[in-house]
Amino acid sequence: MILLLYAHPYPHRSRACAALLSAIEDLPEVTVRSLYELYPDFDVDPEAEQAALLGADAVVWMHPLYWYTAPALMKQWFERVLVRGFAYGDEGSRVAGKPVLWVATTGGNEEAFSPQGRHRHGFAEFEPVMAQTARYCGFAWQEPFILYGAHQVPDAALVEAGQSLRARLEALQQASAASPRSVPA
Amino acid sequence: MILLLYAHPYPHRSRACAALLSAIEDLPEVTVRSLYELYPDFDVDPEAEQAALLGADAVVWMHPLYWYTAPALMKQWFERVLVRGFAYGDEGSRVAGKPVLWVATTGGNEEAFSPQGRHRHGFAEFEPVMAQTARYCGFAWQEPFILYGAHQVPDAALVEAGQSLRARLEALQQASAASPRSVPA
Repeated sequence: MILLLYAHPYPHRSRACAALLSAIEDLPEVTVRSLYELYPDFDVDPEAEQAALLGADAVVWMHPLYWYTAPALMKQWFERVLVRGFAYGDEGSRVAGKPVLWVATTGGNEEAFSPQGRHRHGFAEFEPVMAQTARYCGFAWQEPFILYGAHQVPDAALVEAGQSLRARLEALQQASAASPRSVPA
Repeated sequence: MILLLYAHPYPHRSRACAALLSAIEDLPEVTVRSLYELYPDFDVDPEAEQAALLGADAVVWMHPLYWYTAPALMKQWFERVLVRGFAYGDEGSRVAGKPVLWVATTGGNEEAFSPQGRHRHGFAEFEPVMAQTARYCGFAWQEPFILYGAHQVPDAALVEAGQSLRARLEALQQASAASPRSVPA
């Protein structure tokens, strides 16, 4: 099972994320948790979220990019769920080895993410905060899936992006089927 | 006036941040807003926060480092307060030119923040998310003030760190007195 954590403050007003989700939601064994709908008061339930993680073979963190990283509620999820004794610490991590795929949509085009662009940095320079959060917990960090120009990209390109994402998720499912985790959670 | 935004989820259980705050709280013209006390439900008031920003000559973002960046409520503050039409956009930024000083405490020692250390990156590699958030809004990003080893650092070193921070804030105040903003907010 792939656990897709979706953090969009206005999930029903999204264009790019909605297109990506529609391309994958009929995949078998994908569970979507829409954090802003589950936790409008930011009161993330650590037990429920940890149980969902333990049942997952792979995890997707999907959201529009807000100020160069995850929206506040996904940050709250990190802080409440990825805690010592569960995700790291002397007894190790209960999520070790699970792949994490970061899926971010951003209004800026790819050229904006460059030293000369208005974001002054290549996208990769914003990645360590997310990647190291995952790696510190022993997750297997995957090459991120970034959709640029989310507001302007034509419908056809959005469909294509959806298919690319679907292929990434199918590859994660095949990899997990080929090498089932030897230590049950 | 220096506006110090303090984001500690348990402000009264903090050791390092409390020591830093106690070293500066008697400075004239410093206003502390403790976000987790003001907004326990994450319902940040954009108008109140924007008014506080407009009245400030300089801004401090102070918090313990959580997953390599600001805690969730400070992220929520960025998303609610630094919005188009106020902090960026066609009509420019109403906070342009105000210095922002990032003050972060972290349990890890400085060696942990290196390619060989457990955080796998030098601290500077985590800085672009915060720095570019500030710069995109036209804030004048200052060299960050980082307190490493917050859990282990001896009391004497904490006092010293507090004095260093106090000196940084006094320098900001002197700079703002020397060159008052020509365009009133």
